[in-house]
Amino acid sequence: MTEPRLVEVRKNVLKQNDLVARALRARFREAGVFVVSLVSSPGTGKTAFLEKTLTLMRQHYRVAAVVGDLATENDAIRLSRSQAPVKQITTGTLCHLEAAMVEKALEDWNLRDLDFLFIENVGNLVCPSSYDLGEDLRAVLMSVTEGEDKPLKYPTIFNSADIAIITKTDLAEAVEFDWDEAYRSIQSVRPHMELLRVSSKSGEGMDAFVQRLLKAPCTMPSTRQELNH
Amino acid sequence: MTEPRLVEVRKNVLKQNDLVARALRARFREAGVFVVSLVSSPGTGKTAFLEKTLTLMRQHYRVAAVVGDLATENDAIRLSRSQAPVKQITTGTLCHLEAAMVEKALEDWNLRDLDFLFIENVGNLVCPSSYDLGEDLRAVLMSVTEGEDKPLKYPTIFNSADIAIITKTDLAEAVEFDWDEAYRSIQSVRPHMELLRVSSKSGEGMDAFVQRLLKAPCTMPSTRQELNH
Repeated sequence: MTEPRLVEVRKNVLKQNDLVARALRARFREAGVFVVSLVSSPGTGKTAFLEKTLTLMRQHYRVAAVVGDLATENDAIRLSRSQAPVKQITTGTLCHLEAAMVEKALEDWNLRDLDFLFIENVGNLVCPSSYDLGEDLRAVLMSVTEGEDKPLKYPTIFNSADIAIITKTDLAEAVEFDWDEAYRSIQSVRPHMELLRVSSKSGEGMDAFVQRLLKAPCTMPSTRQELNH
Repeated sequence: MTEPRLVEVRKNVLKQNDLVARALRARFREAGVFVVSLVSSPGTGKTAFLEKTLTLMRQHYRVAAVVGDLATENDAIRLSRSQAPVKQITTGTLCHLEAAMVEKALEDWNLRDLDFLFIENVGNLVCPSSYDLGEDLRAVLMSVTEGEDKPLKYPTIFNSADIAIITKTDLAEAVEFDWDEAYRSIQSVRPHMELLRVSSKSGEGMDAFVQRLLKAPCTMPSTRQELNH
């Protein structure tokens, strides 16, 4: 008896989220800010990757980040070392961010002051997949230490993302990571999915990621083009 | 408006789960099977750890495993290399196992034929925490590659578990894992929490884990005592 009702209530929540996400996306577009969200397991290295990204990009662009966790301000503290503005969202027991939480976190920021906004979701390969946050680009991260078959086991999140990023490549040899198998897993779930390899430790692939963001079709509204000169 | 209703429906689902879990626990006790569940992030190495455990234990005990994933039979296939009976549960989009799924998976097994049953939950540090599966011991695993602060970020799952197991210790040096910080994280969330360090690759700590199970207060009903001689 409870199951259909639960499904119905969940649908309402999702529908409500879509409305907020749509409004957010419109605001982002209007303000000329390109929004990138990151999803992955806990411990894949989203925060380290984001810290490196913010540090690299803030030399030329106005970047900021919003970061979600169930508890602690740890990630916001870490990210603030990049000198970029950072807001922490704590979700309590909720395993994903919702558009309304992002909206609230952005309340006292003027979006026109930003070129790129990063949203780091709660570490989870399931819950975040159905929640649109108004982002322009969703990146799903998996680390070489997690094994090659994560895309097969969590197909929905890979399908909801625009780009896959394999992290901690500096450990690939130590864990005997099988690149071919990983590529096959990703391609079988999401044919032709765009893929990057990065190491926040060695710096491998970081420039490629930044270049990828700069090339994104919507990344170059007037404000950013000016900055680029 | 939707939030209170969602909370209410969730409570009903949880209550229903508790009833099934209680019945399961009674059946496990009666059959003299000791049940251990494993929870962790995706990629922490639950399956490798379980494969090693089954292989070690099946020489002297009757062991079996039930393993949950959103999709694929990969884990059941891997675990069956241990020669122990294994059942795969696929949850579709659900981020946790529920007691009713375990009950259904066990339908055609005679629990009296088992000494130890292992339940590997879906890789997730949030959803499984509130679902009792009728287990005697819940182990939460975290790998050295995930970082030292996972307990602080996911306190509920550490609070719902009986024992913490740090995996992939063979990689600790490569990732400069800070053991003191990890201990502090665990202890601050759950003072005096029991802790083991294991590596499925090198075998470190595997015997200690098996010994821990054999010493568990409820692990020694008559059938197992006989086997132990």
